[in-house]
Amino acid sequence: MRISELSRRSGVATATIKYYLREGLLPKGEPTSVTQASYDEGHLRRLRLIRALVDVGGLSVATAREVLHVVDEEGLSLHRKLGAATYALGPTITPPIDDPAWKTVREEVDQFLSSLSWQVSPDAPARNLLTHALLSLRHLGYQCDTEHLRAYARAAGAVATTDLKTLAAHTPASESEAVEEAITFTVLYQPVLLALRRLAHEHESALRFADAETTPQKH
Amino acid sequence: MRISELSRRSGVATATIKYYLREGLLPKGEPTSVTQASYDEGHLRRLRLIRALVDVGGLSVATAREVLHVVDEEGLSLHRKLGAATYALGPTITPPIDDPAWKTVREEVDQFLSSLSWQVSPDAPARNLLTHALLSLRHLGYQCDTEHLRAYARAAGAVATTDLKTLAAHTPASESEAVEEAITFTVLYQPVLLALRRLAHEHESALRFADAETTPQKH
Repeated sequence: MRISELSRRSGVATATIKYYLREGLLPKGEPTSVTQASYDEGHLRRLRLIRALVDVGGLSVATAREVLHVVDEEGLSLHRKLGAATYALGPTITPPIDDPAWKTVREEVDQFLSSLSWQVSPDAPARNLLTHALLSLRHLGYQCDTEHLRAYARAAGAVATTDLKTLAAHTPASESEAVEEAITFTVLYQPVLLALRRLAHEHESALRFADAETTPQKH
Repeated sequence: MRISELSRRSGVATATIKYYLREGLLPKGEPTSVTQASYDEGHLRRLRLIRALVDVGGLSVATAREVLHVVDEEGLSLHRKLGAATYALGPTITPPIDDPAWKTVREEVDQFLSSLSWQVSPDAPARNLLTHALLSLRHLGYQCDTEHLRAYARAAGAVATTDLKTLAAHTPASESEAVEEAITFTVLYQPVLLALRRLAHEHESALRFADAETTPQKH
């Protein structure tokens, strides 16, 4: 298809597509003349992924390029590719140097993940994300007890299982398509979970605190 | 306590505390002389909340001020206060005008929430957040089926129940303290959930795709 059709089908303006081409996020099309090129379904899919990363995920063009670079890398197994692409997604927390409080909480995080028997690389950046979040809680005077954390882990495990099940049901045409889909799901379902958590909070608050409002006063 | 002790106990630099005082985020202390004031535990707690909102939640000072304004408002019930403060937290999605696709998905969101029997205000901004996320998925060619969404809702419900249970166990001294804690939990446990979801994805990917790597090739 020509760039105009790629624009129409993706809903992305031609100027934006040209920008992604220049920035190396979108691979060049097959040249059909000096000034024109032809694009295929792979380009359309890639364009959708770029939009997911940049518009919904809020990634910079540089970070998106890094993620896409991993998707295109040859010779990595699917699991490694999924891992590397997710790691590149960020956010990345750089651990402070020589902070004993960080070290303590990071060790607790590692022990907690071991207790779940989750198969997670020791280098997974989400270990630092979790450490940072728990340390922030602690700095603010809140201790996250293990029971609370376990409930969160169960919930996270349940959504991850559903995500992978939906992905597996798709039977993508190629491995790089599978990775593209997995990244899209990781990014696009994140706000779904956050929105539902907010809504569930409101519901729980209504259950616990709203009765006083609706029950008429005795007199 | 003096501002220096407030700084020491909160870990927030004196200059930053003075900035929050000027910006009206932190109420003024009790004057003890022309140049000095005395601060209490309420100031310390408020300072922690500001840090949670600004540092971890990534809120602007203006948005943080709006949230704190709701916390301090008189005459609102606890449930209303929790709602208003959470609404002010954002992120806020402004629905597009006259977009039939938006209208369709928003109606689906409303029906879905009704089907869960969640008590959520028709004006809850998270309805728009969820609509936006599902519409993004649809624009990118993915349809979120109800079963997938239900699994997410169950997970969100479970973490919300845990959050409220932990909050209820605290028996805060005052209602505004209860709201402060609830807001802190909403903001600070969000990255906990995101990090655990990433880790759970890696684990699920290992279960499904890593076998091929560790099983030796037949020959």
